[in-house]
Amino acid sequence: MKKGRIEAFSDGVIAIIITIMVLELKVPHDKSSFKDLLPLLPVFSSYVLSFIYVGIYWNNHHHMFMVVNKVNGAILWANLHLLFWLSMIPFATAWMGENHFAPAPVATYGFVLLMNGIAYTILTLVLVKHHGDESVLSRAVGADFKGKMSIACYILAIPSAFIHVGISGGLFVLIALVWLVPDKRIEKVVHEENLKT
Amino acid sequence: MKKGRIEAFSDGVIAIIITIMVLELKVPHDKSSFKDLLPLLPVFSSYVLSFIYVGIYWNNHHHMFMVVNKVNGAILWANLHLLFWLSMIPFATAWMGENHFAPAPVATYGFVLLMNGIAYTILTLVLVKHHGDESVLSRAVGADFKGKMSIACYILAIPSAFIHVGISGGLFVLIALVWLVPDKRIEKVVHEENLKT
Amino acid sequence: MKKGRIEAFSDGVIAIIITIMVLELKVPHDKSSFKDLLPLLPVFSSYVLSFIYVGIYWNNHHHMFMVVNKVNGAILWANLHLLFWLSMIPFATAWMGENHFAPAPVATYGFVLLMNGIAYTILTLVLVKHHGDESVLSRAVGADFKGKMSIACYILAIPSAFIHVGISGGLFVLIALVWLVPDKRIEKVVHEENLKT
Amino acid sequence: MKKGRIEAFSDGVIAIIITIMVLELKVPHDKSSFKDLLPLLPVFSSYVLSFIYVGIYWNNHHHMFMVVNKVNGAILWANLHLLFWLSMIPFATAWMGENHFAPAPVATYGFVLLMNGIAYTILTLVLVKHHGDESVLSRAVGADFKGKMSIACYILAIPSAFIHVGISGGLFVLIALVWLVPDKRIEKVVHEENLKT
Repeated sequence: MKKGRIEAFSDGVIAIIITIMVLELKVPHDKSSFKDLLPLLPVFSSYVLSFIYVGIYWNNHHHMFMVVNKVNGAILWANLHLLFWLSMIPFATAWMGENHFAPAPVATYGFVLLMNGIAYTILTLVLVKHHGDESVLSRAVGADFKGKMSIACYILAIPSAFIHVGISGGLFVLIALVWLVPDKRIEKVVHEENLKT
Repeated sequence: MKKGRIEAFSDGVIAIIITIMVLELKVPHDKSSFKDLLPLLPVFSSYVLSFIYVGIYWNNHHHMFMVVNKVNGAILWANLHLLFWLSMIPFATAWMGENHFAPAPVATYGFVLLMNGIAYTILTLVLVKHHGDESVLSRAVGADFKGKMSIACYILAIPSAFIHVGISGGLFVLIALVWLVPDKRIEKVVHEENLKT
Repeated sequence: MKKGRIEAFSDGVIAIIITIMVLELKVPHDKSSFKDLLPLLPVFSSYVLSFIYVGIYWNNHHHMFMVVNKVNGAILWANLHLLFWLSMIPFATAWMGENHFAPAPVATYGFVLLMNGIAYTILTLVLVKHHGDESVLSRAVGADFKGKMSIACYILAIPSAFIHVGISGGLFVLIALVWLVPDKRIEKVVHEENLKT
Repeated sequence: MKKGRIEAFSDGVIAIIITIMVLELKVPHDKSSFKDLLPLLPVFSSYVLSFIYVGIYWNNHHHMFMVVNKVNGAILWANLHLLFWLSMIPFATAWMGENHFAPAPVATYGFVLLMNGIAYTILTLVLVKHHGDESVLSRAVGADFKGKMSIACYILAIPSAFIHVGISGGLFVLIALVWLVPDKRIEKVVHEENLKT
């Protein structure tokens, strides 16, 4: 089974998710001065954060599928499972933004990020299983330190929201920064592989 | 005529359908505690069910088009007909979720699933006709037992909603589970075909 | 310049247009019996009509680009011009449906269809000019009788809406039926071309 | 790393952006005469302007990526950064249209266009850096006079909105006209390159 259509479908869904979030930036009706934009600031900043997160997922998905050779039914479903949790991000983003980063919405946002992290890990494991431990993919994924650390941070961020939302927010920004650097592991292994052959 | 663009267009439409459903999960305005999420539970669970159904259709469409070699005008329209009924799923999902699984919306949801099942069967028949009885596609589709059983269950689920919506809901979940296992028929026939050549 | 990306972008835009129309089918809130669906009937039937029209445009676009070899800046803009008028269809559809086929909305719908017909004709002319009179494309398009007839019917349908909307509606359905048969001209010329070589 | 998926993802996002803007054209409810369309004129004209701008970005993106051979992480993020600012266009368009071109919304629209211009310039620079000064891409981009002039005009248009919005509007239309002619630089360099080889 070819990987082309799973990439195309994922690109389509992720493109829609990243774009429909902006629909939550409601135009202030009958208001036309700059200060009418101020109440949108929390929604806008949560949008920026989520745009970066969805962008990270797209980038990592892109990198990982570069070394995917074959797909099967389990991979299709693991991928759909990831897309499901990604599709929850616009809702969590809007709820967090509209409520000016109140504890429960921030914790919910952390939960959605956690589920995305878990879904991505499952997809990675299913892919590695299908390609074998000796595959380029398997070596590229490696110990997945960043993935494990992110999941730990999300777990930490959820209860932290009830102590101070700033802790959770700080963790979300921190993890985003860690991932903003695209996954060199895969580029590196691909490069080494090319040198060998 | 090449199949590439019909796949790309179907992927686009299905990606949008699966994603816009989440827009029905309306953010609770000016409410920021976990219990404000509770009223969303019926909408959320109907969303999960429909996400799985649309995912199943995408998976099966993906599998079937793997063995499609050529398309014609009739296939384009049979495919658009399927996309039309898939586009009705978000409406039926929202109506069922908002009304907490009241009988008429549940029956309507069953009707939309039935029309999707019929549209998929028509697409299959048109494809088989164009490829001939001896084609890989034709043998891969075979007697289509799962397709026929699903249609029978949808027909059963529609009136059952007026006895108890739980019967219809149970049938919807059952059929989803039956299909969650991707269509091995096609993978099997493709595999056998590869062995021969 | 390759045609791949212009096809992909057009597929994306048309997929979104054909799908967002269904968002106008507003779920009846706090109403859960079949008779609550009745007021949606005009919106639903205008949706069906527009789905078929957008489907026709996608099919014809698909057929025409099969024989396109090269694109230039003028073709990109002629194509965007067509996409612009296609993007007006959801608005015209919703206005016509919500007002139960009142004269002005029906005439507006006819006007949008007319502009789409003109935009498609312009795209055809620009493509033919770029490929030359002796090209497969040029012979496939031929005298474009169906295109000219459709434009004449749209022009007729606009004022007819103020006599009786049934005349306009009948014309819309008639043209849709004429086009439902995909454009055999191109398939035929492609076939002849294959026989020659 | 291949450029195919970055093109496909960008096409998807831009297709959605260009299409969801039309959702701001709200159907006048319970109103069915032509004069009920008049209040939509400002929203409609701002939609036309933005459709052309997004179309220009798509065309230029298309042209530039024709001569892109390879992508890296920095390019993925520079591209996502451009998509982020493109995703702000529907909001700015709707705010400007709904407020009948009041000064602050017009200035905001100019700011969003400015950020898009800057994001596109950054993407160009990152691409040129990755391909080297001697690359086809580098020579095709050249001194980027039109890009620099556009940024200057956007900077001018922002404060001008508070003198007279007509000045800003005139500048927006002027820059659109300048870009409507697709970027001959790249087509020219590609052509010369083909002659050499």
